[in-house]
Amino acid sequence: MAKSSIIGIDLGGTNLKCALLDGNLKIKAKNYFSTKSFDNKFKLIQGIADSINSFISLHGISRNAVLGVGIGLPGPVDTFKGMVHFLPNIPGWREVGLKKILERKTALPVFIDNDAKLMALAEYRAGQAKKFKNALCLTLGTGVGGGLIINGSLYRGSDNAAGEIGHVPINEKGPHCPCGGSACLEAYIGNARILKEARKLFGPRITLEKISVLAKANNARAIGFWVKVGERLGIALSGVINLLNLDAVVIGGGVSDAGKALFESVRKTIGLRAMSVQAKRVKIFKARLGNDAGIIGAGYLVRERQVR
Amino acid sequence: MAKSSIIGIDLGGTNLKCALLDGNLKIKAKNYFSTKSFDNKFKLIQGIADSINSFISLHGISRNAVLGVGIGLPGPVDTFKGMVHFLPNIPGWREVGLKKILERKTALPVFIDNDAKLMALAEYRAGQAKKFKNALCLTLGTGVGGGLIINGSLYRGSDNAAGEIGHVPINEKGPHCPCGGSACLEAYIGNARILKEARKLFGPRITLEKISVLAKANNARAIGFWVKVGERLGIALSGVINLLNLDAVVIGGGVSDAGKALFESVRKTIGLRAMSVQAKRVKIFKARLGNDAGIIGAGYLVRERQVR
Repeated sequence: MAKSSIIGIDLGGTNLKCALLDGNLKIKAKNYFSTKSFDNKFKLIQGIADSINSFISLHGISRNAVLGVGIGLPGPVDTFKGMVHFLPNIPGWREVGLKKILERKTALPVFIDNDAKLMALAEYRAGQAKKFKNALCLTLGTGVGGGLIINGSLYRGSDNAAGEIGHVPINEKGPHCPCGGSACLEAYIGNARILKEARKLFGPRITLEKISVLAKANNARAIGFWVKVGERLGIALSGVINLLNLDAVVIGGGVSDAGKALFESVRKTIGLRAMSVQAKRVKIFKARLGNDAGIIGAGYLVRERQVR
Repeated sequence: MAKSSIIGIDLGGTNLKCALLDGNLKIKAKNYFSTKSFDNKFKLIQGIADSINSFISLHGISRNAVLGVGIGLPGPVDTFKGMVHFLPNIPGWREVGLKKILERKTALPVFIDNDAKLMALAEYRAGQAKKFKNALCLTLGTGVGGGLIINGSLYRGSDNAAGEIGHVPINEKGPHCPCGGSACLEAYIGNARILKEARKLFGPRITLEKISVLAKANNARAIGFWVKVGERLGIALSGVINLLNLDAVVIGGGVSDAGKALFESVRKTIGLRAMSVQAKRVKIFKARLGNDAGIIGAGYLVRERQVR
């Protein structure tokens, strides 16, 4: 029998998203849980296993028809050993052999990877980076994560740690970054940092969503706010583009909803700062798959790793 | 008959180096010319052709025994069309179909590429980057050039323009760079720029070679000079390492002779600024092939491109 179903899971600091995907990686069913509703690591892992098993029983699928389970995690992962090194925003995870634990609990093949890499894989296979051989996909949120497509494949680097666009320094000296470095892009444009700036400008009750709405309504201060974020992102991207001569940069995550002010500022900065050949080549896009990118990328991970 | 000879050529702003290489890419004979002794583009191209033809006749080699001619050029090149876009430090070159011209003048297959890429290829195949799957090789000279080895192959990017580590910005604002950008690494640590700094510190007759000698003799100001250069290089490299999770960075070019003060500063800065997994993985080396890297890389280019 053809194995025609895949289970895709995206574990974030806020939500655990689980989906049943068909053979074309279309979403057939989806469950959301609050990550914080699980008290600890063991309960969270059991919750993931229960969610997988419930898809099987509720949809009347045979385990033999499931190609595998793919899981994206918000932190460094050894994708080949199936080991989670740690999760910066979910306490208690350190060197967890998640693949083995879940394979025991579900009797299904499980594959895990870093969530930003899976978002990149999804945008490359099915989204905005489709057909671009060399691309960077990045997510603007609490953290600034990224995944690289190089010569038509997800590029992992020597420890599966490549893609950290958020930790490219944009100044010799600058704010301390939780990664241990300083003046990293994320230390300037991560959500926490820009929200702090925003409160100084717009008062204590402002949200980033509101500034996006204001910018779209032509509020000059709101536009200026996103222009500044776009300049800093554009400077980091200029270095990456000069180094990698990419076809495309795809920007996702909550902040990518800021709209034209942000994207035009990124493009303008690249035009000013990057080398002419590289700047001319690269296209800057908003991510297409939105909140589903992680789930779909998890599905592609299973397809790439699993011999059918 | 086995084609056992290759001619490798490295055209620089200062010297034109031509070498006859055997089947193992060992140098059998070498000629140096001053690039400036050729009045114009046409004479320089004729000089290259004459040098190729003289190897053939002086060493009694049959043209059938020559696998091909490889040429490294100091500027952007379309390696597949054999076209030189322009050479920033040699006037008069713009969209020159060098491959075709030389193939006509020598009756040999000719392959051309950017010199920093060929240096990277040489260090990867036969030098300090050997056996490292993911590496950046960079040259510190008038310009700061580079070539990337990704997943065991020379990475070209979408227009053969990848590798421009010299044009990674290290500040939001900073000195204008001839590339059109600003605050690029090269605008801080290119030879011209550091020599200007050096003259302020050590007087008008100082040379970079002398500062290296002083640093090796423990002169504190000379050590401080190279430490500052190493910090700036280390900051740019931290971003590249976080992004690419490399095994190795290989540093060549004249400035790489500065010695311990420079290299320890680079390593220390990466230790402070790069992410722990990436910093732990990467090794920083001095290039091994020195002045011959370009010639040997040109030889490897012929071997990679030419079906024997």
